[in-house]
Amino acid sequence: MMKRLLITGAAGALGGECRRRCGHLAEIIRVSDIADLGPAGPNEEVVQCDLSDAAAMMELTKGCDGILHFGGKAYEGTWDVVRTSNIEGMYNLYEAARQNGIKRIFFASSIHAVGYSPVTGPVDSQMEICPDSLYGVSKAFGEALARMYYHKFGIESVCVRIASALPQPMNHRNLATWFSYDDLVSLVERVFTVPVLGCPIMYGVSGNDRKWADNSDVDFLGWKPKDNAEEHRSRIADLEDMPPSDSPDFHYIGGPFVTFGIMKDDGSQS
Amino acid sequence: MMKRLLITGAAGALGGECRRRCGHLAEIIRVSDIADLGPAGPNEEVVQCDLSDAAAMMELTKGCDGILHFGGKAYEGTWDVVRTSNIEGMYNLYEAARQNGIKRIFFASSIHAVGYSPVTGPVDSQMEICPDSLYGVSKAFGEALARMYYHKFGIESVCVRIASALPQPMNHRNLATWFSYDDLVSLVERVFTVPVLGCPIMYGVSGNDRKWADNSDVDFLGWKPKDNAEEHRSRIADLEDMPPSDSPDFHYIGGPFVTFGIMKDDGSQS
Amino acid sequence: MMKRLLITGAAGALGGECRRRCGHLAEIIRVSDIADLGPAGPNEEVVQCDLSDAAAMMELTKGCDGILHFGGKAYEGTWDVVRTSNIEGMYNLYEAARQNGIKRIFFASSIHAVGYSPVTGPVDSQMEICPDSLYGVSKAFGEALARMYYHKFGIESVCVRIASALPQPMNHRNLATWFSYDDLVSLVERVFTVPVLGCPIMYGVSGNDRKWADNSDVDFLGWKPKDNAEEHRSRIADLEDMPPSDSPDFHYIGGPFVTFGIMKDDGSQS
Amino acid sequence: MMKRLLITGAAGALGGECRRRCGHLAEIIRVSDIADLGPAGPNEEVVQCDLSDAAAMMELTKGCDGILHFGGKAYEGTWDVVRTSNIEGMYNLYEAARQNGIKRIFFASSIHAVGYSPVTGPVDSQMEICPDSLYGVSKAFGEALARMYYHKFGIESVCVRIASALPQPMNHRNLATWFSYDDLVSLVERVFTVPVLGCPIMYGVSGNDRKWADNSDVDFLGWKPKDNAEEHRSRIADLEDMPPSDSPDFHYIGGPFVTFGIMKDDGSQS
Amino acid sequence: MMKRLLITGAAGALGGECRRRCGHLAEIIRVSDIADLGPAGPNEEVVQCDLSDAAAMMELTKGCDGILHFGGKAYEGTWDVVRTSNIEGMYNLYEAARQNGIKRIFFASSIHAVGYSPVTGPVDSQMEICPDSLYGVSKAFGEALARMYYHKFGIESVCVRIASALPQPMNHRNLATWFSYDDLVSLVERVFTVPVLGCPIMYGVSGNDRKWADNSDVDFLGWKPKDNAEEHRSRIADLEDMPPSDSPDFHYIGGPFVTFGIMKDDGSQS
Amino acid sequence: MMKRLLITGAAGALGGECRRRCGHLAEIIRVSDIADLGPAGPNEEVVQCDLSDAAAMMELTKGCDGILHFGGKAYEGTWDVVRTSNIEGMYNLYEAARQNGIKRIFFASSIHAVGYSPVTGPVDSQMEICPDSLYGVSKAFGEALARMYYHKFGIESVCVRIASALPQPMNHRNLATWFSYDDLVSLVERVFTVPVLGCPIMYGVSGNDRKWADNSDVDFLGWKPKDNAEEHRSRIADLEDMPPSDSPDFHYIGGPFVTFGIMKDDGSQS
Repeated sequence: MMKRLLITGAAGALGGECRRRCGHLAEIIRVSDIADLGPAGPNEEVVQCDLSDAAAMMELTKGCDGILHFGGKAYEGTWDVVRTSNIEGMYNLYEAARQNGIKRIFFASSIHAVGYSPVTGPVDSQMEICPDSLYGVSKAFGEALARMYYHKFGIESVCVRIASALPQPMNHRNLATWFSYDDLVSLVERVFTVPVLGCPIMYGVSGNDRKWADNSDVDFLGWKPKDNAEEHRSRIADLEDMPPSDSPDFHYIGGPFVTFGIMKDDGSQS
Repeated sequence: MMKRLLITGAAGALGGECRRRCGHLAEIIRVSDIADLGPAGPNEEVVQCDLSDAAAMMELTKGCDGILHFGGKAYEGTWDVVRTSNIEGMYNLYEAARQNGIKRIFFASSIHAVGYSPVTGPVDSQMEICPDSLYGVSKAFGEALARMYYHKFGIESVCVRIASALPQPMNHRNLATWFSYDDLVSLVERVFTVPVLGCPIMYGVSGNDRKWADNSDVDFLGWKPKDNAEEHRSRIADLEDMPPSDSPDFHYIGGPFVTFGIMKDDGSQS
Repeated sequence: MMKRLLITGAAGALGGECRRRCGHLAEIIRVSDIADLGPAGPNEEVVQCDLSDAAAMMELTKGCDGILHFGGKAYEGTWDVVRTSNIEGMYNLYEAARQNGIKRIFFASSIHAVGYSPVTGPVDSQMEICPDSLYGVSKAFGEALARMYYHKFGIESVCVRIASALPQPMNHRNLATWFSYDDLVSLVERVFTVPVLGCPIMYGVSGNDRKWADNSDVDFLGWKPKDNAEEHRSRIADLEDMPPSDSPDFHYIGGPFVTFGIMKDDGSQS
Repeated sequence: MMKRLLITGAAGALGGECRRRCGHLAEIIRVSDIADLGPAGPNEEVVQCDLSDAAAMMELTKGCDGILHFGGKAYEGTWDVVRTSNIEGMYNLYEAARQNGIKRIFFASSIHAVGYSPVTGPVDSQMEICPDSLYGVSKAFGEALARMYYHKFGIESVCVRIASALPQPMNHRNLATWFSYDDLVSLVERVFTVPVLGCPIMYGVSGNDRKWADNSDVDFLGWKPKDNAEEHRSRIADLEDMPPSDSPDFHYIGGPFVTFGIMKDDGSQS
Repeated sequence: MMKRLLITGAAGALGGECRRRCGHLAEIIRVSDIADLGPAGPNEEVVQCDLSDAAAMMELTKGCDGILHFGGKAYEGTWDVVRTSNIEGMYNLYEAARQNGIKRIFFASSIHAVGYSPVTGPVDSQMEICPDSLYGVSKAFGEALARMYYHKFGIESVCVRIASALPQPMNHRNLATWFSYDDLVSLVERVFTVPVLGCPIMYGVSGNDRKWADNSDVDFLGWKPKDNAEEHRSRIADLEDMPPSDSPDFHYIGGPFVTFGIMKDDGSQS
Repeated sequence: MMKRLLITGAAGALGGECRRRCGHLAEIIRVSDIADLGPAGPNEEVVQCDLSDAAAMMELTKGCDGILHFGGKAYEGTWDVVRTSNIEGMYNLYEAARQNGIKRIFFASSIHAVGYSPVTGPVDSQMEICPDSLYGVSKAFGEALARMYYHKFGIESVCVRIASALPQPMNHRNLATWFSYDDLVSLVERVFTVPVLGCPIMYGVSGNDRKWADNSDVDFLGWKPKDNAEEHRSRIADLEDMPPSDSPDFHYIGGPFVTFGIMKDDGSQS
């Protein structure tokens, strides 16, 4: 059991879920976000701060044993937003973690780091980087940074390329990509309780019949996803018409991101 | 033959060499650097500017057909320096290239993107990212960005993981890592004259007896390095005592970079 | 749901099974065979014709959306028979499909296309072609043709290398090779309902404990075989004495076909 | 030294070259073609006949030790032509070879069996079949048939996927694909003099700087191509303007074949 | 059903378990050990003898159909002990088996033949030999010897690299490495009842959530382990404090063996 | 330059060649054999002793920096001979080397460790162990032992699977397998002068046109064989009639060894 586990991005959906359900992993859970986090619960510490503030990050990470890093932009954004939160923020977090002696980090990477991979081919940890967005490029940066801190300083990280982490699968694409909250939480538990982690890359996806991701590299974690999006198929059929087969949803693992242009400050793309 | 070829970092050693010797590739060579470049030669345009200035980059790339991108920090630096020149600068350059319709870029990446790879194992384009420095992380970022611009916008780039580009091999490590100027120039020629490039990753290294890099992925370029560091062995033996066998020079392809800490503003490491 | 699904070879065992059980996949099922098919059922169209008749094939495929192609010779035959039904017939069908705008085909290929593969080695979609019979050669031809129509014209096909599709496993070899009718039907459903198919090669085999075939390439189909021949082991032990261990049944995935010679018109082999 | 070597397609360019230059491989060279072959030279036997005539093939192969099989259609054709000469003819030849005890065959296959392979990827003997034409499909058929006769009857064949066998490279694409007549002849010599051949697939291409084909599987042949198309680069630049970079010449190893439709009897395509 | 199955090392834990539970595999079970084996049970023959005695081995193996070879030193020992029992003894057994016509052997190899393999990497039959002890070297010798007797004389062996065969998992490392007695016995059954075995290398490990071993090479055996150490996790937590994460238990598959020196006669290590 | 290099088996052909030509690698060359070695030359020490004598080995290795290990049986022998010289002797040498602090060893392994590998397949360092003789098994043992001493104690060894080390190629098989004395000596030089060696497996074979061995794993050595057996082809044709194509010489890399039985004391085989 850790002394203190830091959760960044704790005001978000995944960070919030882990805030609610990972209390047993540490004596104290320190939650952080740029947004309001509400009052601290029992055994909780609440710190509102910005990943791009290096000094704040240094303070935030003091006294922690592990980090669940969900903070930063979790979707495509302008270069300024992506760079500030996912590149600058990632560096600030890892450098602070190093200086404060933190030894293990769960890094919420994304399938968008390899979004141009065809759905019909193999999807594993060795595949070539082929990001589908600035967001995806920032996650590739994050994985490279995590690897450097591992080789040079011994900080262990798992880079979890999260697919579609949602309470329920919501569309036909999610039949392959759904990552249930239960499976997320059980993965977090494994990551912080196995004796050795290294710095693996893996995919955050449930045990869906249609999943294309191969996680055999991390068999040693002993993590077994329990959910299967296929059980939601009839509900999805009610929610969404089957998209046309030339929809990018079904050709690339990045799905709609492959159609994005470069986002501008006014929200338009070019 | 291109209309206008842009060379960034043209005040540096490699950019300067290409400035002198690649005039035949385009009607006009536009050279650029943050440092002084001296007067323009025949068929040359000289533009002094900073990669981190997005507007200047947009101007700089106008009217160009191709880019030889040597600009940015070419060694380990503080995070601020690396981020500004190699991350911010790389984005500015590619985004400007996109908006100005440039279709092909020679990106001077570095072996330090995979610097922790053991010398005694295979070294090829599929190997895992394992940077040995913030500099190496910035090159991994650059490769990811180049891949994204290729898949999304069709801009072709070669990411050349340059080993030790020097007029002559200077130490025992260079027996494996030397990349001669002649071989650099012949590679540049191939990159800008082959009909199709794609977005390959390759190693910039001469035909040294001891080279560990496998470039068979880019056989289609038809590039054949002509130099061999082994011919310089006796001269090197005069220059440098053989380092002890536990020197990092001989264990990791990143050589001494694996021993670096994080550089601080005052030049010290931690 | 398709408008009209064509089933060739519908008078055979597999075609007949699909005729009975795949009615929900299309508004109309058009069944075809060179043999008598009996009267049309509800929502059925019955067309008796010969695969080797190009004009008849052009008629047969009109108005269809998809094809389940079981037609042709399903066992070793003389060259004349194999060529006429499996080579000439295959071409006629695909060319007619192209001209009539059909976009998806389930092609009943066979493990005999790779029948000389040792049972104790890996059996996957990348293995070398090594047919064990003229029948197997004709299936290799069929796969090549399907691939050409995919790359050139966008017609998607799955090439299912069917092992032993039977109501029940009947001998010791079937413990590895059985492909149950339920699993066949569920595979057909997946092939015609997934949004994207491409042109994969896979193995038609149930979830037998002893199956040697690896279908991980088509994980994206989400097909999960439900049957397991092992549950029939005691019944098989009653049916058949264990063959001697030098029986070809257990050395090559093609089993007894590897012992066949070239079949002559009088049914003898040489 | 063989007793009698049969050359099919001996009225064609490659067959003719071998007729002129392979006399030292056998006491008698038997040359055959559907076209006129002129009078027999010393130690020559001339037989005019048609591959699609099974009885003629049986006669033709009598008394031979080896076959150099260049016969059949060597370019895209209508289905009737391709099937007759390259499928029917191939079967007739191999079945006759079997009945007459011939043990080794040089089969002129073609890169068009894998014509849709990208030039920028690996090109080796294990790559997936992806023909670019009916011609390419017929060569895939031929390779499958050769493999079956090898495994079942011990007839050794080399399947040489010939690229561009020409007296000289004639265009920019040939810088990668040229297969010189000298290199063809030296390969033929090796194929008929090595003690063991097996049934390998290899690429017929000279030692061009830009060749993308990997023949390391047949290192045991000890064949070393001597020619290099690069030496013809300036001559080619005079002959042909560089095609635009979106020309299929440079994207797929099949080059222009990927743009072909299905050929009809009147020579048009659809 | 075999006539006579020999079990060596039958006084040990695994040999004893198989003695009790494998009676159905043969009409007679002949058990052997250097230690006392007690009286013969029904259908049992008891032979006390020493593996290093070649003449005794020749006698011991007479009239047998198969061998379950657990005999020899099952832990690190001095060179004299390891050489005598595991090298000399292994040779004596196989040579006697050959002379007495025995055709199938279950060889209890060990993960210590590859003990330096990192837990976080792939662990399969193709991995490099990297023994962690003289014991591990002796098992690598045994596998090489078994392979030679297979290729040269057709004796089939399975080389089972046993991990931690125990009645129950006893410590945290066993969560990955446990091999239950039930799973051992079901594997023995498969090995002696499949029609063809060849000479595969596989891992003896139960279906543990955390198992790192990949046995897909022997899918053809149809062996499905039923036990899972994870179900014992809470009991283990009571038995053993979690070792520190730098414990060799969690870094190498050989676990504590990687820390052993060379054992001397007095039991000390150097 | 080493202080003292030990050569075992120095009365043999390869050891003798190295005795004559490797004097420049160390101040003193200590030569050893069980046979008479004649008088010591300048800078030589001569020690006659037996590998199976552990105490003598301890003395022999004192004060040495490196070992060239050619000692032991270099051909198939009885088990007693092979075990004594190649197993017992190998252990004695490595254990003595460890106790005396020797850090680098050239181990003359043999292709007979993998002699059953087909000549027509890939031959590299990752291939499965498949010895063709007791001699080959002893070399597999030696490689396993060298690996253990490397991982556990840091002793670097190269395991050179020597093919046919001869003054000249003498038969048709040698066209593929010849390893010239010049190439042997240049390899020895590289092994003892590169700064880092690790514990690689490689093949000892010259740059023959027909060589099937792939040494790309040890590119970092910078060793380039200079000889090519093909230049001796006409001389060989005079020496030896081409063996029949079913000769084992041409099917397995172990050549005639695959036909050997187990050797008995009287020299006969069974």
